Amino acid sequence: MSDQWIVEQLHPFYRKALSYQTKLLDEQTEYQHIQVFQTEFFGNVMLLDGIIQLTERDNAGYHEMISHVPLLTQTEPKSVLIVGGGDGGTLQQVLRYPSVEQAVLCELDRRVVEAGIEYFPQFGNPFNDSRVELVIEDAFAYLQGITGQFDVIIADTTDPIGAAEKLFTPEFYRLMVKALKPYGAITTQCEQMFFDVQLIKDMMGIGQSLVQHPAYYHTLVPTYPGGGIGFLYMSNTPWTEGLNKPYPGPMHYLTPDIHRAAFACPQFFKDAVAA
Amino acid sequence: MSDQWIVEQLHPFYRKALSYQTKLLDEQTEYQHIQVFQTEFFGNVMLLDGIIQLTERDNAGYHEMISHVPLLTQTEPKSVLIVGGGDGGTLQQVLRYPSVEQAVLCELDRRVVEAGIEYFPQFGNPFNDSRVELVIEDAFAYLQGITGQFDVIIADTTDPIGAAEKLFTPEFYRLMVKALKPYGAITTQCEQMFFDVQLIKDMMGIGQSLVQHPAYYHTLVPTYPGGGIGFLYMSNTPWTEGLNKPYPGPMHYLTPDIHRAAFACPQFFKDAVAA
Repeated sequence: MSDQWIVEQLHPFYRKALSYQTKLLDEQTEYQHIQVFQTEFFGNVMLLDGIIQLTERDNAGYHEMISHVPLLTQTEPKSVLIVGGGDGGTLQQVLRYPSVEQAVLCELDRRVVEAGIEYFPQFGNPFNDSRVELVIEDAFAYLQGITGQFDVIIADTTDPIGAAEKLFTPEFYRLMVKALKPYGAITTQCEQMFFDVQLIKDMMGIGQSLVQHPAYYHTLVPTYPGGGIGFLYMSNTPWTEGLNKPYPGPMHYLTPDIHRAAFACPQFFKDAVAA
Repeated sequence: MSDQWIVEQLHPFYRKALSYQTKLLDEQTEYQHIQVFQTEFFGNVMLLDGIIQLTERDNAGYHEMISHVPLLTQTEPKSVLIVGGGDGGTLQQVLRYPSVEQAVLCELDRRVVEAGIEYFPQFGNPFNDSRVELVIEDAFAYLQGITGQFDVIIADTTDPIGAAEKLFTPEFYRLMVKALKPYGAITTQCEQMFFDVQLIKDMMGIGQSLVQHPAYYHTLVPTYPGGGIGFLYMSNTPWTEGLNKPYPGPMHYLTPDIHRAAFACPQFFKDAVAA
């Protein structure tokens, strides 16, 4: 292995480093610092503002879980919105459903989309699919005029720092719920059970005020801080509606057991969120 | 937070670092390099040969899962062996069962036991319990003369490097099974699903040759490589026997849902282990 290291620090108490071979991209865009590295073990790795967004090796635990958990609760989902997700990994999963007629991806930074197409070819350039509408815009602005349109909304965002901070507010969550059909489902990226419990508690509180069946679930992503990340599911349809539904094809991470297991949270976390 | 860092590297491609305030212990024993650091977020942290063994904040995910999963499969477990586990965290969990009459802890290095007592007082100095027999000896040697004695054996070992390498061999697994009662249960520390798949596959193969119901399960430990670790359950009693049994008291990590969820493995891992 090489002795060059990608060093990441999102929390003040924790750092992680991946050995890399080549830096493929290093660019300050209008909105953020975007980097792509080639690594031997993890494959290509994308960072935004120094934080690891995805690797070829372990992104399925993220992309399959953020997309199929809400999608499987819907009978024949037709209209899907992805907030962020410019790398294309979530979009690829959404497009696997033949029922999907419209997949809007609302991403602030066109350069993320271009980097995804160039450096993550295994996502199959989903932007070429005729069902896709790419909107390069602030999601806050985009959602203002939309009511009751989407079966599924997936907030595949960066962490609540800088430009993405306002995507973790009651105002933005309300805009998403307004844009959703009455029994549609939303999933938002919602951080790490051990490191971010206060943020998750706040987001759960917002979810409880907006929908009948909010629920927290989580997945394994070794290259994320603490080795995993969670999601907030928000819907008037319970997440259990999606269990044991037929998949749109083979999965790399998801199984029916994993689907159920993702909603099992440790006792200390349940206590902290309920307190 | 301080800008002093504990930097750990177990795999050639991955490093992790925790910020620390004070180094409490730094000693080369007869067997290994033992260090204890005080950290603000994780509490006290113990390392052996540079590898993080436990932290105050997240050890419950390890200690509760390595101990209660086998113990709960046994009706009134009486006799328990812990291999390694000198820090005392697993022993504390074992002693919570009133039925346990004998808890043997076989640890190579007395200094680990002493460091556990000094720096991890929340384990309640389990070595003071009259049911405990502390054996300072190589577990390989200790097990040679023992047959059919234990209800539960827990191999709470370091990684398969150096002194602990022989604890990940068919010979050692056979010794453990020989020392077990016919329907007793063994759990061994068995590394990380994303990083160590070949080792796990090898260990599963050994388990399959020795018992009727081997099974792999896993838990969340953010300070371990990749944020988690797995275990090999080996028994002629299925692990499901332990589900929904009464707990010996409140848990910090374990819940009935977590118990079941721990055995749910991602599709790619199931495929790799079955291949």
